[in-house]
Amino acid sequence: MKLCRLRQGTSVLPCAVVNDAFYDLSSKIGDFDAEFFAAGGLDCLTGVDITGLPVVVEHDGFAPCVTKPSKLLCIGLNYHDHAKEAGMAIPQEPVVFFKAPSSLSGANDPIPFPKGATMLDWEVELAFVIGKRTKRATQANALQAIAGFTVLNDVSERNWQFNRGGQWAKAKSHDGFAPIGPYLVPADQVHDINAFDLSLKVNGTTMQSGSTADFIFDLATVIVHLSEFMTLEPGDIITTGTPAGVGFGMDPKVFLRPGDVVETTIAGLGTQIQTVVTDG
Amino acid sequence: MKLCRLRQGTSVLPCAVVNDAFYDLSSKIGDFDAEFFAAGGLDCLTGVDITGLPVVVEHDGFAPCVTKPSKLLCIGLNYHDHAKEAGMAIPQEPVVFFKAPSSLSGANDPIPFPKGATMLDWEVELAFVIGKRTKRATQANALQAIAGFTVLNDVSERNWQFNRGGQWAKAKSHDGFAPIGPYLVPADQVHDINAFDLSLKVNGTTMQSGSTADFIFDLATVIVHLSEFMTLEPGDIITTGTPAGVGFGMDPKVFLRPGDVVETTIAGLGTQIQTVVTDG
Repeated sequence: MKLCRLRQGTSVLPCAVVNDAFYDLSSKIGDFDAEFFAAGGLDCLTGVDITGLPVVVEHDGFAPCVTKPSKLLCIGLNYHDHAKEAGMAIPQEPVVFFKAPSSLSGANDPIPFPKGATMLDWEVELAFVIGKRTKRATQANALQAIAGFTVLNDVSERNWQFNRGGQWAKAKSHDGFAPIGPYLVPADQVHDINAFDLSLKVNGTTMQSGSTADFIFDLATVIVHLSEFMTLEPGDIITTGTPAGVGFGMDPKVFLRPGDVVETTIAGLGTQIQTVVTDG
Repeated sequence: MKLCRLRQGTSVLPCAVVNDAFYDLSSKIGDFDAEFFAAGGLDCLTGVDITGLPVVVEHDGFAPCVTKPSKLLCIGLNYHDHAKEAGMAIPQEPVVFFKAPSSLSGANDPIPFPKGATMLDWEVELAFVIGKRTKRATQANALQAIAGFTVLNDVSERNWQFNRGGQWAKAKSHDGFAPIGPYLVPADQVHDINAFDLSLKVNGTTMQSGSTADFIFDLATVIVHLSEFMTLEPGDIITTGTPAGVGFGMDPKVFLRPGDVVETTIAGLGTQIQTVVTDG
């Protein structure tokens, strides 16, 4: 079973996905938000006859698979090959930054090309959602914090990242710069959480292809590190960095333009397809 | 009238403050959160007979004056004298970063001295709360976005800020690193929003003393700038930088130790008093 959120007119339906059918959970739970994960998350569905629920046949596409996190935390430079292409030293410890939760969008929503953007770039990333309040995790218990996994495209404007004021906040937080989903896959349904295969294509050409087996800092280390500096709350989203192959790392550099199509896949978690559109 | 949130056992009561009396609003509204501000904020109180509501006599101190923002956005280096003491160039445009909402604490809550901290520092700041959804504000309409003003101490661990991985997230987001309040003062009740006097004492000695009249980027410019890069949501908190006099800027440098007492005041908005305590 996977989870997703489907738009239907002005509503969003939390759904369970079983054998490619969408079952409407809205009579059973509120939403896949901080409150849901704080109340036990998937445990809230124990005993629910999922396939007895109404099937959603008509819908208007995927909303973000989780919503209203208290924070969207990001690891930078977490693959050796990406640090190298970015011309940055291999970090001695995880590089940590935030994206605004208002940047979250549905897996197949358009990527906005904002007014003034010149260097719009992609980053396929493995993201996970925190299932329980976590402060000072240990290597032994860290992975218990993970409720599930999903795909996130950490869309970034490189001129804003490197030439607009020192920190990365501006480059990473525009509305629509964090397509997430389509699915949240519960942690216990992942075959090997240490080796997700990730890839990203632009207009059909593969630009990124990697495995989280190449992480500099693995999932447990990331959780231990983050939870040393702040409490991770249920529903928080953590995205784990991107492998080589971003546009900024190419020679010559390549950036997205309106009309480009980005296809982002993590094996076992799903595929996102976004079209870049002029915004503002 | 000012607003605050008071702890009472395990509950938090949203209150209106009139002539130093606390009137319990919990029969009228939910809380001072994103939902409250999205629904109209102070307009929700129109027609309510505030002084006819129950008075809160016994309580357990101030909770954060607003709660659960979708983001807590910060401006760095927004006073000429602070940029100089930090040894950093006057920024050409606002420096933007995030603090985790989980760092918010009550105005008089202890400041944690976390395990491993060595350079714990203070920053008195004027903060404001967004009252309406704002995207690409103009200089002419930007100030309409502000619901009210408050005090925020942007507690920072300088070793973590400058020597632990490149971005400022780790230094700024520990639980308890953002005491906020005690009051949210509605914008229409502020005499001059362009000249707040700020000060901060440590153990009775004045360390910071400044005025927001010395901003490099004024409130409208900050809102215009931020809302170019991301949508500001109702309930979001924006803090506007600190004047000179932080511990890191002194010669020799001075940092907080357990037992120190920090007193932070903005004229017209209130005073915070925090004691530094060992944490973890």
